Formats: sequence, C-alpha cells, structure tokens
Amino acid sequence: MGSLSSMNIEPARKSFPNVVNINPLDPEEFRRQGHMIIDFLADYYQNIDKYPVLSQVEPGYLRKLLPMSAPNVGEPVEAILEDVQKHIIPGITHWQSPNYFAYFPSSGSVAGFLGEMLSSGFNVVGFNWISSPAATELESIVMDWLGKLLDLPQAFLFAGNCGGGGGGGVIQGTTCEAMLCTITAARDQMLTKIGRHNIEKLVVYGSDQTHCALAKAAKISGIAPQNIRAIRTKMETSFGLSPESLRSTIIKDINEGLIPLYLCATVGTTTTTAVDPVGPLCNVANEYGIWVHVDAAYAGSACICPEFRHFINGVEGANSFSLNAHKWLFTTLDCCCLWLKDPTSLIKSLSTNPEYLKNKASDSKQVVDYKDWQITLSRRFRAMKLWLVLRSYGAANLRNFLRNHVKMAKHFEELVCSDSRFEVVVPRYFAMVCFRVLPSAILKLSKTKLINHHYYYSINYENNEMDAIANEFNRKLLERINAAGEIYMSHGMVEGIYVIRFAIGASLTEEKHVIMAWKVVQHMVDTMLN
Amino acid sequence: MGSLSSMNIEPARKSFPNVVNINPLDPEEFRRQGHMIIDFLADYYQNIDKYPVLSQVEPGYLRKLLPMSAPNVGEPVEAILEDVQKHIIPGITHWQSPNYFAYFPSSGSVAGFLGEMLSSGFNVVGFNWISSPAATELESIVMDWLGKLLDLPQAFLFAGNCGGGGGGGVIQGTTCEAMLCTITAARDQMLTKIGRHNIEKLVVYGSDQTHCALAKAAKISGIAPQNIRAIRTKMETSFGLSPESLRSTIIKDINEGLIPLYLCATVGTTTTTAVDPVGPLCNVANEYGIWVHVDAAYAGSACICPEFRHFINGVEGANSFSLNAHKWLFTTLDCCCLWLKDPTSLIKSLSTNPEYLKNKASDSKQVVDYKDWQITLSRRFRAMKLWLVLRSYGAANLRNFLRNHVKMAKHFEELVCSDSRFEVVVPRYFAMVCFRVLPSAILKLSKTKLINHHYYYSINYENNEMDAIANEFNRKLLERINAAGEIYMSHGMVEGIYVIRFAIGASLTEEKHVIMAWKVVQHMVDTMLN
Repeated sequence: MGSLSSMNIEPARKSFPNVVNINPLDPEEFRRQGHMIIDFLADYYQNIDKYPVLSQVEPGYLRKLLPMSAPNVGEPVEAILEDVQKHIIPGITHWQSPNYFAYFPSSGSVAGFLGEMLSSGFNVVGFNWISSPAATELESIVMDWLGKLLDLPQAFLFAGNCGGGGGGGVIQGTTCEAMLCTITAARDQMLTKIGRHNIEKLVVYGSDQTHCALAKAAKISGIAPQNIRAIRTKMETSFGLSPESLRSTIIKDINEGLIPLYLCATVGTTTTTAVDPVGPLCNVANEYGIWVHVDAAYAGSACICPEFRHFINGVEGANSFSLNAHKWLFTTLDCCCLWLKDPTSLIKSLSTNPEYLKNKASDSKQVVDYKDWQITLSRRFRAMKLWLVLRSYGAANLRNFLRNHVKMAKHFEELVCSDSRFEVVVPRYFAMVCFRVLPSAILKLSKTKLINHHYYYSINYENNEMDAIANEFNRKLLERINAAGEIYMSHGMVEGIYVIRFAIGASLTEEKHVIMAWKVVQHMVDTMLN
Repeated sequence: MGSLSSMNIEPARKSFPNVVNINPLDPEEFRRQGHMIIDFLADYYQNIDKYPVLSQVEPGYLRKLLPMSAPNVGEPVEAILEDVQKHIIPGITHWQSPNYFAYFPSSGSVAGFLGEMLSSGFNVVGFNWISSPAATELESIVMDWLGKLLDLPQAFLFAGNCGGGGGGGVIQGTTCEAMLCTITAARDQMLTKIGRHNIEKLVVYGSDQTHCALAKAAKISGIAPQNIRAIRTKMETSFGLSPESLRSTIIKDINEGLIPLYLCATVGTTTTTAVDPVGPLCNVANEYGIWVHVDAAYAGSACICPEFRHFINGVEGANSFSLNAHKWLFTTLDCCCLWLKDPTSLIKSLSTNPEYLKNKASDSKQVVDYKDWQITLSRRFRAMKLWLVLRSYGAANLRNFLRNHVKMAKHFEELVCSDSRFEVVVPRYFAMVCFRVLPSAILKLSKTKLINHHYYYSINYENNEMDAIANEFNRKLLERINAAGEIYMSHGMVEGIYVIRFAIGASLTEEKHVIMAWKVVQHMVDTMLN
C-alpha cells in the first residue's frame, strides 16, 4: 500500500478540474480517496512516537498559515493531506501517542475507528426508530451487552423488561450531557410534586472532587449556583465522599428550607481516581428521595473485570449510571454510556412529538425513540462503534487490555516508590498514579540555588512553606517535561499539594514506554536538583 | 480493490486467535481493516439504490438475530462485516440513497467522510486550546470562512476582532444544543439583572412552525413550559412569523408581569421551509431587549448563493445565528455551525475552570477554549470535516451542488403543477416541495369506493369534511409509497392540511431519480383512484 510520502505530491497546488457534474458522493472517488486516508492514518500511527506529544505551537499559529477565505475552486485531496501533514499535525496534541499520559486516555482502536467509519458512511440521522431501526435496536442491544459485562442489576437493562416500564441504556455524547439529562428528569419529577416556583430551592450534591461537569449541567438546568454543593473530602479517606458528610449537608439544607434533589457519586474522580462509596451514599440519598447518578466516566470500564467490580457495589441503589467508553474502552470519542432504571422519567422531560416526526412505529409504543432520551434530536449511529469494539476484541481481550494498563501503572508506581526523592501521593486504584517530588528532596538544595532556579522567591521561608516550594518545583518539573515533548502528563491539586498525574491508557502504550517515561522524569529531576 | 463479496468469507465464525499481545491500535491491522471498510462502503454506495429506502423491518427484528451477550473471544472483521450486510443494512433507512426525499437531507460527501476519518483517527479530546491547538484554531478559521461565504456581518466573525471582545463561531452538535446554549446565556444575563427568583417569569418566543427543539431547549434550561410561546402563523403569509403578532404577544406578556427573554426566528421551517422575516422581527425584539437567535438549520446553507442571501437579510440585528452543515452542506452528522456577536455571554454561563485543566495558554486569555462555548467539555475535532468540505469542493462547486438541488425541486414542482389532480400547497423557496392530491380529485371517486378503500369511513360527509378525506387519502398514499420502498418522503400538517414533503438534497440524487419519484407518486395515485 502506498503511503502519503510515496504519493508524489506536487508542491504547487493543482486546481481541481471544476466540473459541474462532479458528484460529491461518487463511489469510485470515495474508494480512491478513502484508501488514501487509510494509508495516511496508518502511517501516522506508525510514526506517532516521533512527534512531540504535547503540541509545541504558539497561539494563533494556524491563522498565519491558512488563507483568509475558503477557496472558490476545489482543491485535490493530495494538496489537503499535505497541509494536514505540514500545518495540522504540528498543532495536534497526540492523544494516541504511546507516550501520552495526561488527563484520562482517549483510547482509540481499530475496531472503534471502523465502527465510526461505518456510522459516518451510513450517515443516518437516528432521531427515532423509523429513521433507521438498526441504529436504535443495535444501541439497545449493545447497551445490554455492556451492562451485563459490568454486572449491572437487571433493573438497568432492557432485556427481561419486554413488557416495558423497565430500565435501559442510551449512548450520549459525554458525561455532561448524561448529567444534564438526568438532572432535568429529576428536577421535573420533583417540581411536578412541589410546584415550579420551588426551582430555586433545589439542591444538587457532589464532593469537592466531583467533575466540574456536574456544576455546569446543574447550572444549565436552572439550579441556583449557590445550591450546588461540593462537599469536602479528605486525604485520610482518600478523597472519597463520606456518607456522614452527605447526610449532615442534606440535613442542614433541609433545615434551611431547601430541597435536596440530586447526588452525583463518582467512581474514579478526575484528580486522583478517588472512589465515592456508592452503596452507603445511595442509602443516605434514598432516605431523602434524592436521585443518585453514578459517574464512572473513567473507571467504569475497569469494572468489566471481576476484580474491579466491587468499586461500583451498591449501584443497585442508584437511579442512573454512566461511563465513557471513549475514555478507556477503545471506542473513539464520543460514546458516553448511560443506564437508567426509569427511562420514563427522562422521556417525560425530554420528549417532543411534532407532527412531522409522527409514525406508526412510534405510535405503537413498541419501539424506543432515543430522541426522547437525550438533549438533541438528531443523533449519530454511535452504537456501531461500541458493537465493533465488543465484538472485535471480545470480553477476554478487553479485560486483558485494561489489566495490562493497570499492571503498567503498578510498575510505574513501584518505580516511583523505589526512588526516595518521590512519593505516591494518593493510593492507586486503577491505571493512574499521582506522584510528586518530596519537599525533603528539594530542600536539600541550598537556599541560594532554590532562588536562582526560581523554585522559591525568598530565602526567609519557614517550614510550613515546604509544600509551597514543593508545589512550585513540581509545577516547573511538569512544565519542562511537557515542553520537551517526549512524554505528556497533567496535574492536579489535593489539599494544597500539587500532584503530577500519570495516566496510562493510550492504546499504543507498552511497558517500554512506561519505563522510558520514568527515565524522563528522573532525568529532569536530576537536572533540576543539580 | 477487492469488495466484500470477493473476500471469500467463510460462513462459520472463525475464532480470532486470542493473543494477549494484540495491540488494539496496531498500524498494520488498522491499514488492513481500514481498506476493507472503505471497499465495503464504496460498494454500499454503488448498490444503494437497490435497497428499499425506508427500512422494512419490524420492531424488535435485531434482537432475534444477535446473541444475548457480547462474545468472550474476539471475532474477525470479516464475520462482523458479513453481519453488517445481513443484519444491519436491512434495518437502515438509507439517508444516502438517491431516492431519499424525506425530512431534510443528511448530505454526505467524500470530503465530509474523509474529514470525519481524520478527526476519528487523531481522536483528540479538544476541550481547550492546549489539548490540541489545531482543533481549536481550525474551527475558528473555518467558521470565519463559512461566515464570509454567508456574508455574515463582521460582528459575527473572529477575523478583525483581534483585540478580543468581538464575535465568533463554534461548531456544536445540533441546533438543539445551539439553542440551549444561547437560551442559557440569555437567561443568565437577564437573571443577573433582575434576580434569580424571576426565572419563572421568563418567556421564550417562536412561531407555531418553529422546530420543537426550541421548546425542548427552553424547558431543559428551566423556562416554565407555559411561558414558551408558539405564535400562530397563517397560510396567507406563507407561515412566516409576523412582527405584529410578535409585538402583540410580547406586550400581552409584559402586561401580565412576564419578562420577554428570547426569540427564535426560523429561516426554512421544518414543515414547509417557511421563512420568518428576520430584519423586522429583530427590530421588534431589539426594542424589548430580547435575545434573537436565527435558526437556519436547513436553509442557511443555501445562503452561500447570492440569490438566496436575502432570506437572512437583517441578521445583523440578531444575537446568534446557526445552520446545520450536516443537513445541506455535505458535512456528515453532526456539524451545527453557531455564530455569536457576543460569545462572552455564552462563556459567562458555560465556563468551568477546574485546577486539572489549568494551563498557561488559557491563563493568558490569548486562546479560545471551546469547552466554554458549549454544553459538553469533551469535544470532537469537527472542524476537520468542514474544512475538507470547503477546500475539496470550493465555494463554486458547493453553490453548484445546491443550485442543482433547487433546480431539481423546481422541476418536481412543475411536474406536480402539470397534473390537475395535485396541488403545491405552499410556495417552494428552496429544494423542498410540499404537495398533496386535491380533494377534488379524490371526490371523483364514488362514495362507496371511498369507503371500500378506507379513504373515508362514512357516506354522510359534508363539504367541510373534504379536507379530512383528502388528508386520509394523502396519508395512505404516502404510507403505500414508503412501504413499497422505491422512494421515501415524509409529511407535515399545516392549517389542518396534510402535506407530503418532497425534500431534495441527498448527494447521489440526479434528475432521473426525481423523474422516477414523480412517476412512483403518479402511479400510486392512479392505482388508488381506480
């Protein structure tokens, strides 16, 4: 197969023959150009470790390189691909690189990509069943498949609920949408009981570790910003939300005349992959009639392995549960899987029934119309990629992939622990390690050096400023490592401590990349402490 | 290149060798399987007119064909593609078929598909600038490109607004998201002035022809359902919203102590492609400080042709404007282009700034962080496909494609008018014709025949029931045509009249398909009137 570099692209732009009769979806042009892009991307993956992981461009770089306006005459795909190579790739932060360890992974796969291609190729607008029955039915089926792999309670699945009125799953774009839909459903359910004028009194709960998507979704749905609780968590309980704190916060709110509405419990928080105790939290929430959503965006995927399933124990007490298959289940962005015990509550809030969408199948109530399960009406055939991932790899391989990531993270953790200058700041549960260089290692430097290196700005520091110095040192460490481009990691802050997050999950990452990454970290620390 | 049928697929599923060390993103596997899918899809387009356009399956068909659970061991792509062919394609309603004339088009193209592939291949999560600068910058650039093609006022573009504080564009998923974001921004702007407790008093305006997305978005954002106005439009003004009706509705609301918030003016409504008079409506709305959003989801694309641009005249008085490039601008689903004069109002409502996303570029305020311009945080690199479409075809070809669709619609309209049994119910502005069989043609049938054919259920009909009979006849006509599978159209209802919607816009549609479609309609009417 030819690659881009062998395609003999002429440097000057050739004008595309401006034939009036070209068809934008001509099958043979599709074939020709499609094969070209496959080779382009295969070559990209082959060479991906040669690019700096974090893009090194400056703000505004691209506007200087591209024309001010769209061309009047079409251009050949060869010229466009040349520009992708020359102008776009330098501005890409390579999430698919084996040396990508930042945020959470965006784990691509051949099967996920193929599914996306089929979905784009069919390009159906699956708002309701009739608009493409396969898109709806495959989604219900794969959501049941994945629900079973997660050992979700039967109440969350379609299967067995043939009579209707049971649970079921839907693929949303992202967790923020899943939260917004469920908050809206919970809100309307509550306001129907207590009257709309009480909207201002509704309270939404999470911990101070909950993803910012909760506050955003709640605000969009009209929850008063001052009624969004971020309950404090502590290092000593590994940043899990304590059921007692939840209860006391609820009681305080009730005493102040407010109305508890919704709790988001997180399994695998963004900063440290902390786990809220789902079961005990559900018990408290259920006492007060609060909707419980379990956000397992990142860590949920791991729960298809029996040894991790216990992290979502108690989910039977929740109303809804979501995970992002596009994070750590090899399904390209976007694929947020949301299960609900009572989809009718969602449908009540989100359904529309205009004349132009009426049809016999919908009228019969025998089918799912997913437009009423989400914010948007138009929806892509996302089930295709999840189906391809589950089928192509099978549960056994998927578990192996995940376990392999966890094993590598464990190895990285051991490497960190074996160097006395470092500490692992919070316990590792999954494939992410939070670490830092210890204050003690940094303070071995003379005060003069500390100041000269800009790790500290005054020579009159006190002991209680040790963490501040360490934070500044670790911040600089991360900045320099990322700027060098060999690996990319990100950071978080817990109880005033700046931690470096090392998240494994890029599909191309192997043991050797992890070992190399650790050497990069050590080498930079050696330099900085010298 | 080989096609699926020549790939010699063995009927029995071969187990995929369950090697622990397979890499889910192996570049050579990507190449091999990627080429296979390209051929599969090219063959699909080649044969697409052989499938019934509207899927003929029964509810629940797929659950009977697929296993109850995900496989434990992976399966080869050949087996999966065989199932796509055998089980999925029969359940697809073929939006890409040249004989697809329902709803609005979902116009695919080679360039759009290629862009989607590149976007899926890079699989970046572009929440902020640093997470992939090219994704953000290309989006700002192509939104300016498209804005210029539409001759949008400078105030909606980034270019020239280097100092910040100017307008700009963002790619959302769908119009519903664009509406929800802008309603939320308008809501918060207003509530900041008048106090949150007034949320119940806010009123949102549209016409009775406005897409149901408006009511849905308004309800999600906490607007009281009884405060969502669907102002009546009339046949005599071609179902455009009258500025006088808007004004009187606003005044009535104000007199009742309510607070006007947001108006959605539509250019190209879903039922009949009616056009609200944007300029005059903005004038009224501006008097009352109402946010005006112009929803040109379908017809906006046509406005890149100078002869259609007048339909959005007056847009300079609006706050925001959106169109769906995935409808009629050859960009695969989803790609809703939203421009705003004052993106900071959006950012104020939708921004989040958690520690784990902090970075120097964002802190510098020199970059756009699109996560704050939309509901979700994670976002796909959608600009890639719009860029490829604009570059591959150029403005000239894109205009030709659109004009060709309009020309074909005109031809269809002439065919309808040339048969005295039919009428075109509302004026055709773009590439969609609303028509029906006239009551006079149907009533030539004897009463007995009318009853025998179930077009009417009583022989005691009065003259004022003529439309009811015509509605039933046209409903049956559409049902039978769609069930036959040769073409697919949809319907709408205006002033009690059932209309058949014939929307041209599938990329593969040529003159011959339109002529054939008309013959299908005539033939079915011949049969039914016999």
